[in-house]
Amino acid sequence: MQNLKNIKITNTLNTELENILIEFKYSKVIFLVDENTIGFCLPLILKNWSQAIKPEVIKIPAGEKFKTIARCQFIWRKLTRIKADRGALLINLGGGVLCDMGGFCTATYKRGIDFINIPTTLLAMVDAAIGGKTGVDLGPFKNQVGVFAFPQSVLIHPAFLNTLPYAELKNGYAEIIKHALIADKKLWLTLSEKGFEDTQILIEASVAIKTQIVSKDPFEQNERKLLNFGHTVGHAIEMLSPEMVGRQLSHGEAVAEGIIAESYISAQIAGLPYAEADKINGFVRRYFPPITFTKGNAEAVYELMRHDKKNRDGKIKMTLLKGVGKGVYDIEVNKDVIIAYLTEAWSD
Amino acid sequence: MQNLKNIKITNTLNTELENILIEFKYSKVIFLVDENTIGFCLPLILKNWSQAIKPEVIKIPAGEKFKTIARCQFIWRKLTRIKADRGALLINLGGGVLCDMGGFCTATYKRGIDFINIPTTLLAMVDAAIGGKTGVDLGPFKNQVGVFAFPQSVLIHPAFLNTLPYAELKNGYAEIIKHALIADKKLWLTLSEKGFEDTQILIEASVAIKTQIVSKDPFEQNERKLLNFGHTVGHAIEMLSPEMVGRQLSHGEAVAEGIIAESYISAQIAGLPYAEADKINGFVRRYFPPITFTKGNAEAVYELMRHDKKNRDGKIKMTLLKGVGKGVYDIEVNKDVIIAYLTEAWSD
Repeated sequence: MQNLKNIKITNTLNTELENILIEFKYSKVIFLVDENTIGFCLPLILKNWSQAIKPEVIKIPAGEKFKTIARCQFIWRKLTRIKADRGALLINLGGGVLCDMGGFCTATYKRGIDFINIPTTLLAMVDAAIGGKTGVDLGPFKNQVGVFAFPQSVLIHPAFLNTLPYAELKNGYAEIIKHALIADKKLWLTLSEKGFEDTQILIEASVAIKTQIVSKDPFEQNERKLLNFGHTVGHAIEMLSPEMVGRQLSHGEAVAEGIIAESYISAQIAGLPYAEADKINGFVRRYFPPITFTKGNAEAVYELMRHDKKNRDGKIKMTLLKGVGKGVYDIEVNKDVIIAYLTEAWSD
Repeated sequence: MQNLKNIKITNTLNTELENILIEFKYSKVIFLVDENTIGFCLPLILKNWSQAIKPEVIKIPAGEKFKTIARCQFIWRKLTRIKADRGALLINLGGGVLCDMGGFCTATYKRGIDFINIPTTLLAMVDAAIGGKTGVDLGPFKNQVGVFAFPQSVLIHPAFLNTLPYAELKNGYAEIIKHALIADKKLWLTLSEKGFEDTQILIEASVAIKTQIVSKDPFEQNERKLLNFGHTVGHAIEMLSPEMVGRQLSHGEAVAEGIIAESYISAQIAGLPYAEADKINGFVRRYFPPITFTKGNAEAVYELMRHDKKNRDGKIKMTLLKGVGKGVYDIEVNKDVIIAYLTEAWSD
């Protein structure tokens, strides 16, 4: 089970990893990497490799469009060919897509082997690599196939962030904003004041918020749903963006739009003061400039929202804010509220 | 978690199922059936259907060769199209292949929804439907991709056995023999004396043995490995049978061969008296006549055995018998012992 003890934010990644390998005596060690991390990150780990065991490497292409069952089959076959047994360890070295998919493949290979996440993007460090959600997309449906599976350890090496472009960092910003809004007013004030200046502190705060929520409710029966704030609208926009905006929005861009939308919906039905929704809007827009949506997409977004995993009996249940730092979940939102907001927001 | 309380051997299947549906108020009820159970079994359930909820039906082809990830994709897509949410229930109505695959699809759809197994073959009733092992094959590797996932309930309706051909019943016989040999000398004596006369009693005994073992060790760290008796050699023979025997052996036929092989290996290295191994051989041969293997397959069988999920560090670990009703697990068996037995057994 996930807890803060097996998440390390460290500047001595190799030492931490070595200690784990010495303790657990895995029969094989396999790195799952993509075309980015094989160049930028793996060499840093392997150059000081002092273990007797020679690691294997499985490389996959980077990007959400490869987060498919077909790619899992490739990974399962590779593991089989390598003759990985149940005593093997897979190390996910990459961003959210890689950690999600690698975790799923590991949790299902021979009914489950150990894995470690070494997230290399800010998004993965503050979100995807922790909490035990694994999975892949099924056509347009994000994470439709997956399991809850908890990594043996998560090793966060903030220095990897230096290898990232700004657009990629922003994916993480959206999740940090979300964490502040649902659970930590103090973090929100820090953000409002200083922006994303001190990344290490923001990672620590985010990891603490997410881990605390997940440890109370690992399988998302209750308060874990808080973490979906911004994501009901966000996921739908992300899926439809090629048609709606003419390009694939990043996860961060979509969640940023989702946070703004769900803040105003919160103001309308969940008690968040409108002035706070305006402040949230203002802060998010510093990093995520407005996107021009084609009018008339509101119905399509609504239809996709109905597929959200949190729903039950065809009704849309959202996580909203009753105040800054105070998320509430399982709030049923009527179609007209959603359509009204989306139409208004996109009509100018 | 699996326990005897949620396994019902019943002659009033519809009433049992109704009670569950009334209690749990699922948002949807979906039957997974194959071309056999849609005709022989589903109508018996639906003809007295009194629930307000109209069940959906997903049909897949019957047979181990369809136990693939591709078929899972079909099921996941169907579930998506039906708009099954996390409150939906899938009912696996079929044999071992269907229960294994349906359980895996359910455990991974939206990270897990509830399922019920209604096994329709003897093999599924005494083995596959209970115990929480789900999965599909990956090329020649059986159950290479899967998870442990426990059904909400297992409803065993022995009357379904009347729809089965003798060859299919025998798949169950092999597993019942296995249960007796690893854990229940009394059951073995009953079998030796009366054969498979009173199926209901044999089902009850088998379910009790398997459930007891599984509840002590659901994730196969220790004593659950007992249940693999006959299957290390059996699985390999099953996989290679098209080349070795010129036809696909049934699971029961392969396990029967495995039970004989592993009994003689037990006599050689685990303490089972040779006279008992001879008796086991004699009993099994009443139902499973000797199969003519092509000579020279021993090496190929051995190589496949090395892929068995129970192995570690490339060494073959088997479950053997130190006596009738007394299984022992994690016994390392050297290559020469295995090759010697297989070569001798197949040289006449």
